[in-house]
Amino acid sequence: MGIVRRAIERMEGYRPGEQPSDGKFIKLNTNENPYPPSPRVREALAGEAERLQLYPDPLAEALRERIAGIHGVPKERVIAGNGSDDVLTMVMRTFAERGDPVASPVPTYTLYETLCGIQGARYLPVPYREDYSLDPSAVPARAKVVFVANPNSPSGTLLPAATLSAIAGRIAGVLVVDEAYVDFARRDCLDLARRHENVIILRSLSKSFSLAGLRLGYGIAREEIVSNLRKVKDSYNVSRLALAGGLAALGDLPWMRENVRKVVATRRRLTAGLQRLGFGVLPSEANFVLACTTGYPARQIHELLKRKRILVRYYDTPRLRDCIRVSVGTDEETEALLVQIAEIIGARIPTGGKATRGNPHG
Amino acid sequence: MGIVRRAIERMEGYRPGEQPSDGKFIKLNTNENPYPPSPRVREALAGEAERLQLYPDPLAEALRERIAGIHGVPKERVIAGNGSDDVLTMVMRTFAERGDPVASPVPTYTLYETLCGIQGARYLPVPYREDYSLDPSAVPARAKVVFVANPNSPSGTLLPAATLSAIAGRIAGVLVVDEAYVDFARRDCLDLARRHENVIILRSLSKSFSLAGLRLGYGIAREEIVSNLRKVKDSYNVSRLALAGGLAALGDLPWMRENVRKVVATRRRLTAGLQRLGFGVLPSEANFVLACTTGYPARQIHELLKRKRILVRYYDTPRLRDCIRVSVGTDEETEALLVQIAEIIGARIPTGGKATRGNPHG
Repeated sequence: MGIVRRAIERMEGYRPGEQPSDGKFIKLNTNENPYPPSPRVREALAGEAERLQLYPDPLAEALRERIAGIHGVPKERVIAGNGSDDVLTMVMRTFAERGDPVASPVPTYTLYETLCGIQGARYLPVPYREDYSLDPSAVPARAKVVFVANPNSPSGTLLPAATLSAIAGRIAGVLVVDEAYVDFARRDCLDLARRHENVIILRSLSKSFSLAGLRLGYGIAREEIVSNLRKVKDSYNVSRLALAGGLAALGDLPWMRENVRKVVATRRRLTAGLQRLGFGVLPSEANFVLACTTGYPARQIHELLKRKRILVRYYDTPRLRDCIRVSVGTDEETEALLVQIAEIIGARIPTGGKATRGNPHG
Repeated sequence: MGIVRRAIERMEGYRPGEQPSDGKFIKLNTNENPYPPSPRVREALAGEAERLQLYPDPLAEALRERIAGIHGVPKERVIAGNGSDDVLTMVMRTFAERGDPVASPVPTYTLYETLCGIQGARYLPVPYREDYSLDPSAVPARAKVVFVANPNSPSGTLLPAATLSAIAGRIAGVLVVDEAYVDFARRDCLDLARRHENVIILRSLSKSFSLAGLRLGYGIAREEIVSNLRKVKDSYNVSRLALAGGLAALGDLPWMRENVRKVVATRRRLTAGLQRLGFGVLPSEANFVLACTTGYPARQIHELLKRKRILVRYYDTPRLRDCIRVSVGTDEETEALLVQIAEIIGARIPTGGKATRGNPHG
């Protein structure tokens, strides 16, 4: 089809993740929160449903004010998106010209490379070390954009602020620190956006706030960056319902924190359980873990779990082909997963309750 | 700021339309529907609020099936967007390389030129004739994308299908027929997407379905175009609430048609009233009218109406500076507008009831 841009024509078609519609799956493949959002969200949505014939506020003033208040930054430094993916798109279109170098430590969120492809920029992957640490000097200084998911997916690991600071200091362009999972981590890097002129911090309400279906995320950066991103964004990119629901969710931080506490507790059980089954599990700072096996093939575990109606994520790449990424569900879902994996690999190690008794501090 | 792409740096900052938050305005400036959406939308939203922790269907299958059923096309020819603006962005990114020619008849929806600027494409405006007809041979054959709003904004006029067909037949790229307002018109051009390989029809739920705040629109084109647009779209561009609300609204076409009937009836009253006050009013096929004056300055009418808390749209361009664009509100809002304009321009012509009695067929 000669009329399509070559960069688009050459791209592979989009492959949607498994989003079963019948609801009979234990869904541990896309890092959704197993707990519902704050009840205040539902109330806010019901109120806003009366005003849907009117356009939303194009500048999302009330929402940005609340975000600014939470983080202690001026609201002029906040931009809202239709999910943080929308802000990623804005960043790419604002900073990367066709052919420009754009870098990421890998393996990571594959959307960064996809967005590069759409824009016609040149993607420069920088491999993480074996333990998912990173040498900042390996990141090309000429990069116009560097994307770092922190915590990273699928590894769940966190880079120290010093490493990110070193990257920000050496590159020609902007450093995007994608903190979609940061509420599950010990610390964030928001302070980098204050100390460096070229850092953009991204946040999402999809995971910790249980609002993946609402589509809401935001970016924090200095005002001049935000005013340029705003030129690129769709005028009415965030719907009335996302504005109202997001405002309500951000007004109930204790609800989010309690869900995070539960997820982090279950993450410990999941990690210990997988380790007992012989998996190598990286210490996770997110709402999922990367579990790698040297025995039974990971691809087959993924396939057999699916037949038992449990979805986990498998990546068919050299570095990840021995691993599965497992989202942290409820305790019950986690227990069911561990039992099924034990059955698949023929492990004699008892999981869950019994094993926990054997190791009361696990 | 040297790190921003030059095309973006040079652009003007986004100027949001007037979206007053205090609700005490008669708002006739952004073509919103004065009537609420189908009550089924509210019910659907309440149900979906229970599932917000899960991502939406990235391919919007159920919604696309309903759209396909309504228009009698296969669902593979339908793509959904976060408003039809989102589909416009996908089209630009799929078909226009930096420097490529992109055309529109003008004056028209200014977003087309803005999207050109962001992509770094070259915008070629083709002036409409005085009566808003168009010579198809004036559209550059080398254009990679041609955008035609039909009905057009701000004129409210409709081009014949034959003119659009002639444009589709002569250009190298795709013709986008933006039918955001078409439910208020006598006919649509959906058939063009069947007869031409390079035609994309756009629809919006913002106006006729009273869902500007929900953000939902869609495109119809041949399958190969849709599959390329899909590569460019955000994975989860349409939220769970937009999917569920849109499905409900599209399941209640009689509600939409009844609102359209009321708007079209009021449009006749508004047109007649403005003509009696001495304005030249183009025959409108949309939910707004363009009213031009040779007497009292249009800019001042716009300003003075605003002081009286009535918002209409004013365009400070050579061709439109004697005109205001007025959205069709309720009968009461229309009456209030006509009374205020009469007062501003010092017209002795009685508006509304009396005038209508004088012309019972108006």
